Amino acid sequence: MTTNILDMETLALDEEEHALVIIDQTKLPNKAEYLRLKTQGEIWTAIRELQVRGAPAIGDAAAIGIYLAALEIDTDDYGEFARQFHEAADYLNSSRPTAVNLSWALNRMEKIVQEAKGKSVPEIRTLLRDEALRIKQEDIDICKKIGEHALTLVKPGMGLLTHCNAGQLATAKYGTATAVMYLGHQKGYNFKIYADETRPLLQGARLTAYELSAAGMDVTLICDNMASTVMKNGWIHAVFVGCDRVAANGDVANKIGTSGVAILAKHYDIPFYVCAPSSTIDLSTPTGADIHIEQRAPEEVTDMWYKERMAPEGINVYNPAFDVTDHELITAIVTENGVFNNFTVFSAETKTFI
Amino acid sequence: MTTNILDMETLALDEEEHALVIIDQTKLPNKAEYLRLKTQGEIWTAIRELQVRGAPAIGDAAAIGIYLAALEIDTDDYGEFARQFHEAADYLNSSRPTAVNLSWALNRMEKIVQEAKGKSVPEIRTLLRDEALRIKQEDIDICKKIGEHALTLVKPGMGLLTHCNAGQLATAKYGTATAVMYLGHQKGYNFKIYADETRPLLQGARLTAYELSAAGMDVTLICDNMASTVMKNGWIHAVFVGCDRVAANGDVANKIGTSGVAILAKHYDIPFYVCAPSSTIDLSTPTGADIHIEQRAPEEVTDMWYKERMAPEGINVYNPAFDVTDHELITAIVTENGVFNNFTVFSAETKTFI
Repeated sequence: MTTNILDMETLALDEEEHALVIIDQTKLPNKAEYLRLKTQGEIWTAIRELQVRGAPAIGDAAAIGIYLAALEIDTDDYGEFARQFHEAADYLNSSRPTAVNLSWALNRMEKIVQEAKGKSVPEIRTLLRDEALRIKQEDIDICKKIGEHALTLVKPGMGLLTHCNAGQLATAKYGTATAVMYLGHQKGYNFKIYADETRPLLQGARLTAYELSAAGMDVTLICDNMASTVMKNGWIHAVFVGCDRVAANGDVANKIGTSGVAILAKHYDIPFYVCAPSSTIDLSTPTGADIHIEQRAPEEVTDMWYKERMAPEGINVYNPAFDVTDHELITAIVTENGVFNNFTVFSAETKTFI
Repeated sequence: MTTNILDMETLALDEEEHALVIIDQTKLPNKAEYLRLKTQGEIWTAIRELQVRGAPAIGDAAAIGIYLAALEIDTDDYGEFARQFHEAADYLNSSRPTAVNLSWALNRMEKIVQEAKGKSVPEIRTLLRDEALRIKQEDIDICKKIGEHALTLVKPGMGLLTHCNAGQLATAKYGTATAVMYLGHQKGYNFKIYADETRPLLQGARLTAYELSAAGMDVTLICDNMASTVMKNGWIHAVFVGCDRVAANGDVANKIGTSGVAILAKHYDIPFYVCAPSSTIDLSTPTGADIHIEQRAPEEVTDMWYKERMAPEGINVYNPAFDVTDHELITAIVTENGVFNNFTVFSAETKTFI
């Protein structure tokens, strides 16, 4: 296995050794360490401790993980198999209860078992392996399509800015915001990438800067407050970010700081693109104002990784994990179905804004 | 001496003990430690090691420091006194060779000695003490006037955002951007202050959050990339920042990130004020584009205070110390002479934009 993560994927099923292989993201960027997880306890811990993170990657890991659990269930009886499988799924699902992709992937796997009544346990195991690999392949295909659509928006040699990590490390391959960078890099586009460090948790510095430079791209790390200057310098030709949720009117919730980057991009007349699977579009949320924003612990801001306090004791801290970027600031949303810049109404049927 | 820095000043001359008293800024925010510096070596080190920092405060410290040196010169002969005084000034001036206020203050003190030929050494010492205290008092008076002018721009209960530390800790008292906050606080204005942490060196988290909360104000610390969200929430009614240099057309160089805050303020229709002594206005610099921007070490960004590396080894880093905010983004510049919002031409005579 190479350490060049352009060639490899963020996670893989080792069918010979019955292991889920992941790159341990808690060790990045200082060490690229690959873990071969075999027991359910190891997989639960890996998701819990953020050794694997990013919504799509967590779903992929859970699907492969529950398949590995199915291999360990020692019975020929369908009822007993289904019971133990459900128990294992419940256990994995408890690793990060609020991660939607985790329960979504496990539900898909449970459905396979439910619909396989009458089949032999070995047959069911094969169906489960196929479904797990399908979930992961769908993730890869969607990211690749997002990248192909985004490639129509750029030219070789462009300077591209991104915020946080909507990268390969958050998916099985390509990432969402970074798919255009990987595909363009394969074509020799020689982008100049600028990565916001993304305070307080520094996903840009630790993960995005790592994965893009490991893939051989020209990456420059900046502090979040330097985005205005690099834009003013004329170095940025387009901004690509991922997102956590798209409201029905095209407003977007993404990592804190995204809305600021969008406003700067508008000021400097630079296109601002949001990349996301269409599954991220939430029709039940009319506008960005209806999106609940998670508040996180003050210590993320005041203590440098809990080693040294960098702000006065007892100081008030406002630490929202996400912000909302109004659709007026977004040049286009790129999904696996195309490039959309009319956010009036999203069609659930055609998976497009119409 | 109280630890409430609203009551005390950032630095003082202790005339009984012949000491320069400072608050050690390298220990903030974890410890408010007062140093009584008596020897030239101690004062040189305090400036060199940033125990005292901020252009006006450095000038004040140097003036008091060189006065203390004059007390130690053991001669009644003017020529010998002047020679040793000049030597001591050269020595203090070498502590931070690029700090303009340092040499400016020492030059004012040397001029006192040059013009006192014929006077006795004790008489000269008194003149030097008076000049040192005058330099400091002028700093205080200018900051206070800036604050009084800025107070006309705000109302009680407003939310005010600031970036970096243009605070009391950078001057003898009041600060520039913070003068409006101290004076308003004394009048019971109950501002809600938001302090950008100001990456990479965190002057906002370490110094501004410290001094304003020590003075009893309601301060909330945010990461730089959260400014957009607090503005969108409607929590900010005005932005006050300091500056390092004002070009003749009103463009302003200040701590990196300032221009981004100005663009956000414009987007959200929030007034953006720059506070600075009129001495900061540099007629020899026509526009912001003519201001040279210092680039600093990548390790400020990639290594958390040199203890743990948070970005890949070898990654490119762009780390400008300052950025330029175009005058179109500035609602007004506040100096000791008033509030100016017409930046067409600066008059050296009247010290105003006309």
